[in-house]
Amino acid sequence: MLPSEATISSNGNAREYEARAALMRAADVGDPIMGRLVLQYGPSQAVEAIRARTLPPEFTAKEAQQERPPDLTARLNVWYARLASSNPTADLEEGEKAGARLVIPGSPEWPTQLDQLGASRPLGLWLHGKADLRFSCLKSAAVVGARSATPYGTHIAAEFGVGLGEAGWTVVSGGAYGVDGAVHRGTLASGSPTVVVLACGVNVCYPSSHEALFAAVKDQGVVISECPPGVHPTRARFLIRNRLIAALSRGTLVVEAALRSGALNTAAHALTLNRYLGAVPGPITSAQSAGCHKLLRERKAVCITSPEEMIDLVGVIGDDLATQTRPPAVPRDSLNEATRKVLDAIPTRGGAGPASIAVAAGVGLDTALSALGGLAAAGYIERTTRGWRLRKQPSSYLKAPESDALEPPPIPEPDPTDVPPPPEDFPPTQSAYQPSEAPWPG
Amino acid sequence: MLPSEATISSNGNAREYEARAALMRAADVGDPIMGRLVLQYGPSQAVEAIRARTLPPEFTAKEAQQERPPDLTARLNVWYARLASSNPTADLEEGEKAGARLVIPGSPEWPTQLDQLGASRPLGLWLHGKADLRFSCLKSAAVVGARSATPYGTHIAAEFGVGLGEAGWTVVSGGAYGVDGAVHRGTLASGSPTVVVLACGVNVCYPSSHEALFAAVKDQGVVISECPPGVHPTRARFLIRNRLIAALSRGTLVVEAALRSGALNTAAHALTLNRYLGAVPGPITSAQSAGCHKLLRERKAVCITSPEEMIDLVGVIGDDLATQTRPPAVPRDSLNEATRKVLDAIPTRGGAGPASIAVAAGVGLDTALSALGGLAAAGYIERTTRGWRLRKQPSSYLKAPESDALEPPPIPEPDPTDVPPPPEDFPPTQSAYQPSEAPWPG
Repeated sequence: MLPSEATISSNGNAREYEARAALMRAADVGDPIMGRLVLQYGPSQAVEAIRARTLPPEFTAKEAQQERPPDLTARLNVWYARLASSNPTADLEEGEKAGARLVIPGSPEWPTQLDQLGASRPLGLWLHGKADLRFSCLKSAAVVGARSATPYGTHIAAEFGVGLGEAGWTVVSGGAYGVDGAVHRGTLASGSPTVVVLACGVNVCYPSSHEALFAAVKDQGVVISECPPGVHPTRARFLIRNRLIAALSRGTLVVEAALRSGALNTAAHALTLNRYLGAVPGPITSAQSAGCHKLLRERKAVCITSPEEMIDLVGVIGDDLATQTRPPAVPRDSLNEATRKVLDAIPTRGGAGPASIAVAAGVGLDTALSALGGLAAAGYIERTTRGWRLRKQPSSYLKAPESDALEPPPIPEPDPTDVPPPPEDFPPTQSAYQPSEAPWPG
Repeated sequence: MLPSEATISSNGNAREYEARAALMRAADVGDPIMGRLVLQYGPSQAVEAIRARTLPPEFTAKEAQQERPPDLTARLNVWYARLASSNPTADLEEGEKAGARLVIPGSPEWPTQLDQLGASRPLGLWLHGKADLRFSCLKSAAVVGARSATPYGTHIAAEFGVGLGEAGWTVVSGGAYGVDGAVHRGTLASGSPTVVVLACGVNVCYPSSHEALFAAVKDQGVVISECPPGVHPTRARFLIRNRLIAALSRGTLVVEAALRSGALNTAAHALTLNRYLGAVPGPITSAQSAGCHKLLRERKAVCITSPEEMIDLVGVIGDDLATQTRPPAVPRDSLNEATRKVLDAIPTRGGAGPASIAVAAGVGLDTALSALGGLAAAGYIERTTRGWRLRKQPSSYLKAPESDALEPPPIPEPDPTDVPPPPEDFPPTQSAYQPSEAPWPG
């Protein structure tokens, strides 16, 4: 799994690895100017230009035409100073010694979806773990959220980790406390690979108490970073890192996020990259769900309440459809309309005769009599000296008179507000009226 | 507040009140055939036709052309039987004695937005309470939800009742346990009128333990029903009643609803009537929020997390805008970019000299020195024998070096994942790349 001589030479360019390792030291992560320089001149020529402290004149001219022309001299000085104090060969050796490998654009393990990042595509990625990054990310979803997650958030994150993993999906996330850690643990439990994208070197353990977690991920998934080995995390690196989480996966799910949260930054990257975006709702009394609700309210994210729904969102059309949530059926649903009307007309207390029941129900006497017989046989009603009334304690083997079900149905609650499930396309039960076009009269 | 002789005669038609009271006995609530009969021939002629057991031939011919022609003879028999066993004059007297009043289309208190219901418009409404129904409903929102609400649901409902009421909005809801009761109590506490729409006669107390609540509503708002006095609630009446809750208000909010819930039926009525629809999210682990999440997921409802957001939804454009939820600001936000870069490059442990800080931060030495001075003065960093490092216990009067604020800002947490609030239009922090059109490569 190391970037052995064989891998490097099979890629035909050990020099390119070293040049990219050098540039990863020189530039800030995601620096678009460095990105354009490398895209246009290649990594080796870029290194030479920086060491010579002279950028190609055409490049300088082109950059000066940018909307906000960068201070190229200052940038070049920074790159030069950092290059002078770094040792890319040592980086490669150190990484290799730690068990990591450098993957660059063109490597077999390079995830080509990162090419969509354009000039801010990472110069290279350090990988540490047994899983193949490119293959793992083919069916992957990012699950992100608050570091200071609530117990609700970590519970949901772990459930989604298990659910996505069991369905054969790889999870991509950061390595922080809270949602990140919980979702990785869930995915590991399911036996699926999981991808941790760090904002520091792959040999740096941040947060340090996640050492065992990262070790488990390396064993079953892969820990990756665009930072050179030994680099420590900073605020800026966390924010830039988020674009990788969004770009690697087919869609991003925000489990919990306060209004000021890095997870919302990842969500914005997902939208910019035309990736799918989901958000898990939570109690409106929880500040840690406010960011999710903002995404839902602005219709930027789809409301996701189960791993199946997330897979439905990011999956292949037709292959990964979630089963529609459906209301439970109760025995009463299978009664026909006339029987239902008769049942509704039967009093709870006292009693009523068939004639008055028929008038109240709005059906003929024959219909009423036949319905009463069926309802009594099924245990819904009983006859008293004062007439028919509802049974107070319905039989536990209550079933609809028409039903041939062998299974005893559950006891229906005597609840007048209980309504039958709305039909698939959700029209109102009473749709006899035609609403006018105006949303409000006058 | 009674339907006094004066009111009836000012409307010029005591006979119409009596005819409508009779028809309210004869027909099921919301019966569209009765609705069409009354719309075409007026209530008095309809009563005569039923008593004569002969519908106008043109009407019969027209009904036979309906997509699913109704059994008019059976319907007429039902109407006839019920009319024969009822006494509309006694109804009016009984209602008046109980302190209620009958309001019919054309009455000054008739809420004309109900005319949108077309043939299923109620034949009349019994009102009991001090508030004027038409005036109260001009600025009104329906708040509905589960009878078996969770403590979360009743808490939210009460909060919305108070919030809507304090902003001058009338609440419309049913009279059930759970969300209905809680939202009325909240609105009553705010001093605003509230409208209870019953599925039984206004003199029937269902559920009976809501007697004190309904008494309070009658004192400050109004209890209404389209059922004649003394009628008991049935399943069908609850469902038909829901269209009134949706039609009376400018928009409906679903606070909590299981997948099988009457609140979803009200929501469907609101959509059919082109009213606004909102849903309050909740924990995805709660079955009582599953219906709300379904509405959000299908983008039928807007995600509502505060009374202000509901008012923003149903209110007048420009007048009732909710303040946008905004992430909190922290002192660090006001640091300029170079200072932030320098702060990010300062180690937590040990220490670093200005030259290495400048290289790590990617700024010039002069910039670094000036930023270090400002950051030290503001209490972010401190100098040790080994160089500069972050202060472990930031001063409680920490402020940004450039800030002239007199108020001491809160202590920022030393959290590298803490991000500045996204700008208004929410672009990603790093937007240097141009995403391609394809949502996923290859």
